[in-house]
Amino acid sequence: MKVFQKEFTLSPHDRGFHIITDRVLDEIPEISEIKAGYLQVFIQHTSAGLTINENTDPTVREDFELHFDSIVPEVENYYQHNVEGIDDMPGHLKSSMVGCSVSIPITNGSLNLGTWQGIYLCEFRDYGGARTIVLTAMGV
Amino acid sequence: MKVFQKEFTLSPHDRGFHIITDRVLDEIPEISEIKAGYLQVFIQHTSAGLTINENTDPTVREDFELHFDSIVPEVENYYQHNVEGIDDMPGHLKSSMVGCSVSIPITNGSLNLGTWQGIYLCEFRDYGGARTIVLTAMGV
Amino acid sequence: MKVFQKEFTLSPHDRGFHIITDRVLDEIPEISEIKAGYLQVFIQHTSAGLTINENTDPTVREDFELHFDSIVPEVENYYQHNVEGIDDMPGHLKSSMVGCSVSIPITNGSLNLGTWQGIYLCEFRDYGGARTIVLTAMGV
Repeated sequence: MKVFQKEFTLSPHDRGFHIITDRVLDEIPEISEIKAGYLQVFIQHTSAGLTINENTDPTVREDFELHFDSIVPEVENYYQHNVEGIDDMPGHLKSSMVGCSVSIPITNGSLNLGTWQGIYLCEFRDYGGARTIVLTAMGV
Repeated sequence: MKVFQKEFTLSPHDRGFHIITDRVLDEIPEISEIKAGYLQVFIQHTSAGLTINENTDPTVREDFELHFDSIVPEVENYYQHNVEGIDDMPGHLKSSMVGCSVSIPITNGSLNLGTWQGIYLCEFRDYGGARTIVLTAMGV
Repeated sequence: MKVFQKEFTLSPHDRGFHIITDRVLDEIPEISEIKAGYLQVFIQHTSAGLTINENTDPTVREDFELHFDSIVPEVENYYQHNVEGIDDMPGHLKSSMVGCSVSIPITNGSLNLGTWQGIYLCEFRDYGGARTIVLTAMGV
């Protein structure tokens, strides 16, 4: 049984959806030692998130930004939590809609993603700053 | 420590929500050898998803289809990514709202689901075709 | 390799979002024996959910309740599944939007959550009753 755990910091990203698959792989090359298992990617923040989606056409990520803004508007008359800026409460809501972690199978030393799948950093703040990621790979 | 990993293909399903719990169990009978652990079910696609929900009344799954269509409409004037059909971009968005994997505890050789819980395949395309699933069971 | 699994019952909570991090930790003190791994928290119900979000300001949880009610209204003319009350079908939908499990890295014997992260019980029913939680901690 093997367990590898790494923690690293993503430098600030613009608000929006960004593919970070290669960066994750760079941080945990030890997954090449795992024949069968999985990798968990966890973000330690509540106004950002992680998801898996289409890894090729950048307009997909732009449409994500517009659609999440549409179903979680920046201003709602019922929001009470707004001391940290109008992008904060919507960021919390979006974070729970996509989630703060993804888990991906590892097979024969590689992430067993589908052809079109990539890991997205979902940055919901205008100036979210650096984000800390914890990677945990487990398997045999 | 035991790790079992299987990959299989679901034949094409109609657009909508479908219970696949029994099919998953058929593919990985080895979970009977695990006393305590968990099973991860992962779908390798970005316009389909997996979730856990009510396993009995078929109208629940029909209401799911109507509600997800309501909050992620087929046509939005801001969608840019539409070269693959009008059901594609909504499918990507819905996929990240439900997620592409579920993890379920294994206890004494069985999935430890609640009485009313089943695993749903969420097929968001009109003609999504076959879908590949990766199962990873881990435990002692 | 260590695996610890616990099942426990949360007494009935009011409809809304509630922080249960301390209760989870009380139920599985054995995570102190894990240097690197993760904890899965799983709820065996389909009209409640679990998510990770802001752990300090109670207005965040109140805004969650109002926003999820806004995007999943209690009454929609297309709901067919309403025999169990008007809060049931919306509860199922909300459950799949937040998910029924969260996974958190364990590092040096503690949950490796961010400073502002807590585990939320999402109770979507008016009278949901007691809820069963399964905890699975795995690691070295």
